[in-house]
Order: sequence, then structure tokens, then C-alpha cells
Amino acid sequence: MYRPQNLRIPGPTVVPQAVLAASARPMINHRGPEFAALLAALTRALQDFLRTQQDVLMLTASGSGGMEAAVANTLSSGEKVLVFSCGAFGERFAAICKAYGVDARRVDVPYGRAVEPDLVRDELAKEKGKDGAKAVLITHNETSTGILNPLKEISEVVRESGKLFVVDSVSGAGATELEIDEWGIDVCITASQKAWGAPPGVAIVTMSPKAWKAYEKSDLPKVYFDLATYKAALEKAQTPATPAITVYIALQESLRLMAEEGLEAIIRRHRDLARATRRALQAVNLGLFADERYASPAVTAFRPPARVDPRNLIRILRDDHDTIVAGGQGKMEGQLVRVAHLGFCTLQDIVSFLSALELTLRDLNQPVESGVAIAAALRSYAESTQQPSRREARPAPRPPASDAVASRR
Amino acid sequence: MYRPQNLRIPGPTVVPQAVLAASARPMINHRGPEFAALLAALTRALQDFLRTQQDVLMLTASGSGGMEAAVANTLSSGEKVLVFSCGAFGERFAAICKAYGVDARRVDVPYGRAVEPDLVRDELAKEKGKDGAKAVLITHNETSTGILNPLKEISEVVRESGKLFVVDSVSGAGATELEIDEWGIDVCITASQKAWGAPPGVAIVTMSPKAWKAYEKSDLPKVYFDLATYKAALEKAQTPATPAITVYIALQESLRLMAEEGLEAIIRRHRDLARATRRALQAVNLGLFADERYASPAVTAFRPPARVDPRNLIRILRDDHDTIVAGGQGKMEGQLVRVAHLGFCTLQDIVSFLSALELTLRDLNQPVESGVAIAAALRSYAESTQQPSRREARPAPRPPASDAVASRR
Repeated sequence: MYRPQNLRIPGPTVVPQAVLAASARPMINHRGPEFAALLAALTRALQDFLRTQQDVLMLTASGSGGMEAAVANTLSSGEKVLVFSCGAFGERFAAICKAYGVDARRVDVPYGRAVEPDLVRDELAKEKGKDGAKAVLITHNETSTGILNPLKEISEVVRESGKLFVVDSVSGAGATELEIDEWGIDVCITASQKAWGAPPGVAIVTMSPKAWKAYEKSDLPKVYFDLATYKAALEKAQTPATPAITVYIALQESLRLMAEEGLEAIIRRHRDLARATRRALQAVNLGLFADERYASPAVTAFRPPARVDPRNLIRILRDDHDTIVAGGQGKMEGQLVRVAHLGFCTLQDIVSFLSALELTLRDLNQPVESGVAIAAALRSYAESTQQPSRREARPAPRPPASDAVASRR
Repeated sequence: MYRPQNLRIPGPTVVPQAVLAASARPMINHRGPEFAALLAALTRALQDFLRTQQDVLMLTASGSGGMEAAVANTLSSGEKVLVFSCGAFGERFAAICKAYGVDARRVDVPYGRAVEPDLVRDELAKEKGKDGAKAVLITHNETSTGILNPLKEISEVVRESGKLFVVDSVSGAGATELEIDEWGIDVCITASQKAWGAPPGVAIVTMSPKAWKAYEKSDLPKVYFDLATYKAALEKAQTPATPAITVYIALQESLRLMAEEGLEAIIRRHRDLARATRRALQAVNLGLFADERYASPAVTAFRPPARVDPRNLIRILRDDHDTIVAGGQGKMEGQLVRVAHLGFCTLQDIVSFLSALELTLRDLNQPVESGVAIAAALRSYAESTQQPSRREARPAPRPPASDAVASRR
């Protein structure tokens, strides 16, 4: 039975047909010239998107594997670090540190709130001197709550402190502003299945010269995640162990599609679709979970109507409307619904989600006038795209490429 | 330009078209019912092929990642273990132990030779008592030299010792006899891109009850590779972190193709094609590197003709004949050529390789009468398949399946 799904979870995100097709090309030798060219091109493209001249290393692993690599390569047993957390992924960062015997002090803000620069400044003030924390670890986009931390402002504070700055931007990079070099980020992690719209399997880790100095002192055990072996192998355009070749090939194709759109346009699209989603949810009286000032461009978390179990709402969306959203994570399990507008997401995908949501609310005996959510989304979207600066910024239509049809999913 | 390659390296192996196409299906939620069904089916199929009722856990990593998981989950810092090595992968196993502070004593046999049961018995005799080694680590199929260690006989010796038995069968499992439960193997590692003919990205690790007891005592740090989290997640038909979904889907399709052929027939095919390859190489006076008694069914290593740099031979095979073979690994770099007959390999693939090899030898001014290598391979193959027991064992032709065309690559 043909039942295409609207995959609206915050990763894996929708993989365009052109990207899937690329991943199905015949297998190649990971020690041969084709893979060498692929790896070199991928590295350059990722450096462009991540706005860095630093080393960009790709590991065959999930984003969590990348987070573990960041910890294992730059920290040491017993070393003090500061972890700012506003959700499940901040907690995971601290848990990884603890598993390795790193002395992580976790600074929590309530779920749904952002880590603000003043908090970072106050906490760093307690960590001065040689007994203070050596590194600051923070989540950029907190997928579990739909919060985008103000990383640019935070980075100014961290840079003043001189501490190693480690950023989990697994679900932020490629979807929102991120200036790795300009903001002084020493280690940054992202993953193929998030904004990049490729299948899961590749974690991406950047390392600054300062991070490599920390590597030299790090005493934590690592082999598979030893980033120096990735750097050495990259000089021969190889990876230390056999890479997830099909995912690398897919990632190259998705980066090609992203380059066609351009990073600025991608960032605007995420912001506009996120806003349209929030306005739509509010129009049907669903409570937004995250502080609006720091609302994520990648994922929006909302509370179900009173007396509705979100798991029930999620099940109806899936079983009756082929619309796949996520529930709450960690301690928010059973309390939230999360809808993603991350990666290759279009206005049509959001409209499709909202149509399914309206019908589902009706199924749950929640009075909703048909089209209310969609109308609110369209109004919001029209307002954002009618700003003059936006219209001017639009690129001229491109001549059709030979694979223009395949590029549409 | 259409230049299909004959991929004859020992992993990644050829991925059949049906498997590639499966991997290009639309992305799914890794926390949803489709992935749950996939993971459950994959686990059962792998248990069948690996001849085990034990836990079979899949990690998004290369085979080396699986080896590291085996070490990090069952051993402890300072603990004594015995590593039998006959090549680069035995050395890697010991190096992983050392990186984690495990006291690994490496017993080496010369490259090209096998680890024999008597050696294991003698070395284990030195490790009796409570100060003796706690575990035995060994490579099943040594990909770097083309040696298949006699694991069945070795397992009898190890079982008598009562020590934990950890086997790297990354390139052996699925290609040769391997009875995990019957032989008392506590931890066994394999990987998707070897005999299984799926793209790289998934490592497979089995854990016996005794291995789980060792896990309880293990003090080595691990998060991403913590196998207890995989076991717990598997009970909900999930993985702890986002898995390489497209590779999992591909693996299910390749296991389906393998089940059609049947494990016994697959093992015979590997043995027969390996033998045919060796006879062909000998017919053109190329020196086989591995001890014939323990010749690998997965890969054959040979020395180039005198005064020929193997890298040159490998380059001509690739650039002029689109035939991709491997060179020597580690300390054999620049000394060997390795040709694989692993995974979805047919007689036609070997004939194609030999035709390219004959032409290449001619290019290198090595006198070869056309067809000599191929004739030797065909004679050897005909002899193996004409044994009466073989003919009887052949299954009756199957009725064409709906996707019979797609199943041919």
C-alpha cells in the first residue's frame, strides 16, 4: 500500500530522493581515488557550511558518538569542566564526561528555558584560577525542548575566560547561524541526519589548534574515536577504519543541494518555517513549551490539549495520517509533542503536518475550525517572506541542471 | 563514461543492486514501528547465520569499533589477556587492549602462517592460576595475510582453559564455518561490509552470559560502545543512539539473499572460489603467500612476479581494467597483492579478475599464455562442484520470486 510518510522528527530528517539515489551507487574502495576525492570535497564543503578553516573530521557514528569523541580527545580524568544544560542533550554531555572520570559540574536551567550569557558569566566567575574548570561544554540547539541557546553571545563570554569551548551543535549546525572560527569554538559536533538531510551514520567533529593542544594532554583512552588518527588519515584522504561509504556519498549530494540554496537562505527558511509552525500551534490553542525568545529553528515542542495524552495524539498522527512526530525525551517523556522543521523541510511539509494535526485534534474531540492552523501558518510565512530585504536577497532562477528532476524529492 | 568496477577487495565487498536499492528507501523514524520490526528481524536472521542464541548487538561503527567494544565491555585496566596474532588485525586487537591499559601479551606467528591449536595449548599452559590471563583474543580470518585460523580446534583448547574467548571474525563470519554457541565463543565481532555484502557502517557483536559476567566487572570507560545500553534498547527494539538506518535496511535485504542461498552453500562457494583463485594464480607462477592448509576462503594474498612492484600491478588492474584489488597491509605494505572472493562473489567475478590479471601481467612484460589462469580456475571449480555430495546438496530450483530480477545485481 502506498502511504508516504511526512517525517517530522528532529532527525533523521527527510532525505531527498536525489540523496537516497546517490547513496545507492555501486560500492567503492575506501582506499581508492574515488573515495579520496569524495572525502576531500566533503571536507571542503563542510568547512564552508561550518564557517571554519579548522580540521573537520568525519566519524562513522551517531552524533552522540561525536560528543564522546569530543570529550575523550580533549579532556582528562579528574579534570574540572563546566557543562551548561537545558535539556536531555546537555545532561548527556555531562553523563559522557562522568563515564570517563571527568569532573563535570552541571549547571542546569529549567527545561524550556535557554542558557543566557549572564548565567555563563556568573558561573565562569566561580571557575577562575588554576583550580577552575578547564573547559565549557554546551548544547547549541537543545532538541529535547526546542531551545536555541544564544551561542554567539555566550561565545563572547567564554572567549574572555580563555577556556576550551566545546559545543554540541548536532541539531543546530546547518540550520542556524554558527560561526565556528569567528566565535572561537574549539570543538563542535554535528551529524549527517540532522540539518544535512543525509541518512544517519556520520558524525562530524571540528578541532581548533587549541583543541589539539588539549588533545596532547588528554589521558582518556580512545582508539576508534582517536581524532588524531582521523587527521593523519585525512592527509591521505582516507579514514582510519572503514567508513560508512554510502552515507558519505549521500552527504555529498545533500551538501550539493544545500549549496544550491545557499546557507543564508537555508537559515531564513528554518526561521520562517519555525515561526509559521508556532503561530499555527497557537492558533489552535496548543501551548508552546520553549521560551519564544529562544525558540529553536529546528524543532518546536508543544503541550497537548488538557486531558489528552500526547502519546495518543502522536499515535493518531502516525497511524491515521502517516505523519511522524516525536514525543518528549528523558524527563519530558509523555508530556510533549515535538515537530521538526529541520533539514530539507518545505512550507508544504508544514502545511501537510498541520492538516494532519487539525484532523487529529478533531478525532480527539478538540473543537478546531478546519484550516485555522494552516491559515495562521500561511499568514506568518507570507509576512516573513514579504519583507523587502528578503525579496531582494532571492537568487535569480537557475538554469535547469541535468539532474534537476532527480533533485526534487 | 560507463566503467563498472570489479570490486575485489576484502571489504567493503560488492553490494548487490537489490541491497543498494533497499538502502535507498525513504528515511524512517528509528523510534517507530518500522525500525522496531527491522531490528527484530535482523537480530533473528543474524542469530541464525552466526549459529547462536546469544545476544547479537548492532553498533553504528566499523568492525574495528566492534573490536573496541568487545575489549571495553569485558576487560579491565591492568588485567592480563593473551592475544594470538598472525597479521595486522591481531596486532590491532592487542593495540586496542593496550590503549585501554589492558595488559595484553601478544603471541605472534609469522605472517602467512596460522595460529595452531598446539601453540594455543602451550601458551595457555603458562597462564594457569589466578595470576594467569583472563581472556584469549584471536582473529578468525586474518584479512591482511589471507589466513583462516583453525578456530574450531582452537576453541576446544580455549574451552578447556575456562578463559573468556573473544574472537574477531569480522571477515570470517558468514563466509566460513563458525559455530558461536557450540564452540563456546563468548564475544564475536563481524561487520556489515564483509561476507554480509551490505554497505559499511554496522558492526555486529555477540555476547554470551559469561561475557555479560565479565561486563559487570569491567572498569573501562564506554558510553557509545556500552553494550548493556544496546541490550536494554534492543528489548524495546531500539538502539541507544541514532543508528545508520539505511545500512540496517540494506543488511536485512542482503541477509534475505543469503538465506535464499543457504549458509552451507555460501560456505562451499567461498571455499571453491578461493581454491579456484589459488590454482589460477599458481598457473601463472604467482606465489601464494598463505600456508595452503589454512588458506582463507575470503581473500587470497599473492606475491607479484620478481622485479614487479605490486603497487604498479594494482594500479594497472585499476586504471586499465577497472579491477580493484588490495595491497599489503601494515608491515606487508608494498609486498603483496590481495584479491577477495568474499561476500556476493560469483565464478564470473573471479574469471573477470583473472582476465584482467592476465592482461596486466602481459603489460608488465610477464609472459603469460592467454587463458591459462582462467582455465586453471575453471578446472578447479569444475572438480569441486562435480563431487557427488555437492550435486545432491544442491537445492531444487526455486520458483521465481516477485523481485527475482531485482535480486540479481
